[in-house]
Amino acid sequence: MKLSEIGEFEFIRRLAPRFSQNLPKNVEGIGDDCAILPYKDGLSLLVTTDLLNENIHFIRDKINPGDLGYKSLAVNLSDIAAMGGSPLYAFLSLGLPSDLNLEWCEGFLEGFHQLAKQEKVLLLGGDTTRSINDIIINVVIIGEIETTKIKRRSTAKPGDLICCTGYLGSSGAGLKALLDRLPLDNETLPLLREHLRPRPHLEEGRWLASQKSVHAMMDVSDGIDSDIQRIMEQSGCGAIIHLDRLPISQSLLHVAETYGWNVLELAAASGEDYCLLLTVDRDGYEQLNQRYSKQFTTSLFQIGEVTATSSLQYLYHSKPTVLPKSGFDHFKKKLAH
Amino acid sequence: MKLSEIGEFEFIRRLAPRFSQNLPKNVEGIGDDCAILPYKDGLSLLVTTDLLNENIHFIRDKINPGDLGYKSLAVNLSDIAAMGGSPLYAFLSLGLPSDLNLEWCEGFLEGFHQLAKQEKVLLLGGDTTRSINDIIINVVIIGEIETTKIKRRSTAKPGDLICCTGYLGSSGAGLKALLDRLPLDNETLPLLREHLRPRPHLEEGRWLASQKSVHAMMDVSDGIDSDIQRIMEQSGCGAIIHLDRLPISQSLLHVAETYGWNVLELAAASGEDYCLLLTVDRDGYEQLNQRYSKQFTTSLFQIGEVTATSSLQYLYHSKPTVLPKSGFDHFKKKLAH
Repeated sequence: MKLSEIGEFEFIRRLAPRFSQNLPKNVEGIGDDCAILPYKDGLSLLVTTDLLNENIHFIRDKINPGDLGYKSLAVNLSDIAAMGGSPLYAFLSLGLPSDLNLEWCEGFLEGFHQLAKQEKVLLLGGDTTRSINDIIINVVIIGEIETTKIKRRSTAKPGDLICCTGYLGSSGAGLKALLDRLPLDNETLPLLREHLRPRPHLEEGRWLASQKSVHAMMDVSDGIDSDIQRIMEQSGCGAIIHLDRLPISQSLLHVAETYGWNVLELAAASGEDYCLLLTVDRDGYEQLNQRYSKQFTTSLFQIGEVTATSSLQYLYHSKPTVLPKSGFDHFKKKLAH
Repeated sequence: MKLSEIGEFEFIRRLAPRFSQNLPKNVEGIGDDCAILPYKDGLSLLVTTDLLNENIHFIRDKINPGDLGYKSLAVNLSDIAAMGGSPLYAFLSLGLPSDLNLEWCEGFLEGFHQLAKQEKVLLLGGDTTRSINDIIINVVIIGEIETTKIKRRSTAKPGDLICCTGYLGSSGAGLKALLDRLPLDNETLPLLREHLRPRPHLEEGRWLASQKSVHAMMDVSDGIDSDIQRIMEQSGCGAIIHLDRLPISQSLLHVAETYGWNVLELAAASGEDYCLLLTVDRDGYEQLNQRYSKQFTTSLFQIGEVTATSSLQYLYHSKPTVLPKSGFDHFKKKLAH
């Protein structure tokens, strides 16, 4: 049986028993954005790793090496943000075809280094090997967090409000603009920037991790349509998402109107938004949002509710609806995450 | 300028400044088998990662998935052994073409799991993504060690004796047997086994790490011809290697005689031996070796001396010689390690 026949989630389900079970109490493995390891003095270590393959996750001549270096680190830092932690150390493995230019490698490391410096992440090592054709990038981040503050996917409660910390769909629209070779102008450039240099929401993550009213948290990497289902699975609950409440940037609204794109589908399912998705105790929400707004000069976006069912329901202006699934290019789709 | 024009070591030399400099006192980055991080109660964490690419490090139809899974973990555990540590956690990233059989993946994980269980390593997570053509494997191991016991590449001293903990060349000969499609018999099978299921010298590493007379240590991954130069660079010294003293297994001697192979070249330069290479205080050597022999029912192999020069010299029965460089298939050669 070929992998393509069983699909992403069935594949993970079958592999899962091979991962270590019956872990010590202070160790957590697969199922969340990071693994959790015991550290010292009330702290835990967070570990995350992402493998990026040419022609699966990026196209060499559609992204400059500096942007790719930056993004390779950013998507991993986003996993640390998702649990509320602070990144400490990075390890970078590169598989490089031998006809690749040295300038490409230097540009890649320049972009990686720029974000590493900004977020005070120490690049400590890795591996560099030859590859036959494609560029291969594997990044590992080790971060830390106060153990009592860790936010997980598994702690959503029925009645919680579902929120996110940023606009949705801009990165997917940026990719679409890139692949469709749209002219670069004031509207498309911000989308492109969201796609090429996503900002990991580390500060937001740390702040939210300190708040008792925040129950579950993760980052939006595959799109909320897919990601909210990870919270549902891990927490054993259902969800309602109000499509009319998905936060959409002015740039995306304009570009989508110009080119006739389905904004809601982009916002719900195109992925790589790298903001945070969280569930908040309903009673604490208003006060939390007020304090959040003071801290970050923007509010949380409340986009749905956690339910006691096991299903995901979409509403559009309070009426049941389904998420439109048109021909959006799921070029980047991973077999598993 | 293309990577192929500058070669492995120049490439690493140019990348090195991009790695974090001026690290905190208790953090060490590139330059050794593992990075070293502060942990707790007199302990440090060791981190190592290796990227293995199809058709660079292995050929799919020349190694069964179980052996590949086992070996992918073994080569990383060997890096932990190289510093004297104990492995704790593993993270596995796989890039898999979608036409790959599920059975292949299950076989791979079975082999990985077998060694992980044996060495009490917890497989905690990773990433699984699609690749276009080639299987991609990235393994990360986090281990621990008492900080005062860490053995490094950088602490060899002129006058030290150079030793190794196992036979050399068997793995390279096993690969040659595989590629040359030699018949599998009592002589070739042990070589093949060394190539497919190398044993990381974790117990030896831990024991040697506790010995004050052991100065520098690393594992033999590229062959001692290359690896001793890593110790020389890091320690600022030279070395003499006695080719006639390289430990060679009976199987390799027989097979090499049958097929007319150059045993010394295989022993010195074919790599993937995954035993330990260490330098030992000359005055403490005899006592160390006696105690080592009791502990492991085999002695250390003394193959050379550290010198105060900066050159590597080969001797054959005390006469200067050069290492023969014939057409051995450096199929597995990495751009960098």
